[in-house]
Amino acid sequence: MDDQFYMKQALAEARKAAERDEVPVGAVVVCKDRIIARAHNLTETLTDVTAHAEMQAITAAASALGGKYLNECTLYVTVEPCVMCAGAIAWAQTGRLVFGTADEKRGYQRYAPQALHPKTVVVKGVMADECAALMKEFFQRKR
Amino acid sequence: MDDQFYMKQALAEARKAAERDEVPVGAVVVCKDRIIARAHNLTETLTDVTAHAEMQAITAAASALGGKYLNECTLYVTVEPCVMCAGAIAWAQTGRLVFGTADEKRGYQRYAPQALHPKTVVVKGVMADECAALMKEFFQRKR
Repeated sequence: MDDQFYMKQALAEARKAAERDEVPVGAVVVCKDRIIARAHNLTETLTDVTAHAEMQAITAAASALGGKYLNECTLYVTVEPCVMCAGAIAWAQTGRLVFGTADEKRGYQRYAPQALHPKTVVVKGVMADECAALMKEFFQRKR
Repeated sequence: MDDQFYMKQALAEARKAAERDEVPVGAVVVCKDRIIARAHNLTETLTDVTAHAEMQAITAAASALGGKYLNECTLYVTVEPCVMCAGAIAWAQTGRLVFGTADEKRGYQRYAPQALHPKTVVVKGVMADECAALMKEFFQRKR
């Protein structure tokens, strides 16, 4: 299984968010070639700004592993994490972060380029067009 | 009621964290002179890096209000928020942030000074000595 395969799973999560009229961001956490957590943005449904896909995926992955640290895991997320999520990814000492499309307005790279753990390997742009298209459709529908 | 009064309540939460052998950080959210949420760090107890005092307080306050935004609220926290929590404080459009002691290693001011919402009023150093003393005692005990 490669990064594209797992990003497709994250995209499937993002589509679930879109179906709920949530900003379509999805995430999965993979450990030793197994998906141990799947999540999508639920901020509106839960009335909770902290309910981003990544936050829920990190919490669920830690629960699945029985430990706080995700140093042997890869977090796949369809959109570049925000500052909040980058901070959580850092605290979890996440081994790899793979994201799809960049988020120039709210992404961590703009506000906190040093926010991640120095050991976290970052891969950008995996299936970026598909991830971006979902976001674009959503915001066009909203207008 | 003034900032000192509410910071004392946050300190009481921080002491609860210390009693559980958690890094002693406490938070309360105040809206129209009423405490609508209280929380303390529970990252070890919950095996969850996202369970910082501020994150839980924001989630609980939104639940109490029935809305995601805390623009009419003040978040009191004993220690300067980290990047993750600063991001959450920004998403919640928190009206005021009052913190006790600075956190030079992990505080948002070092990594993401622009992370907060531009409208959030920040007050620093309220009962800083008491807040810092709790942290210092905790880490000395750990050594």
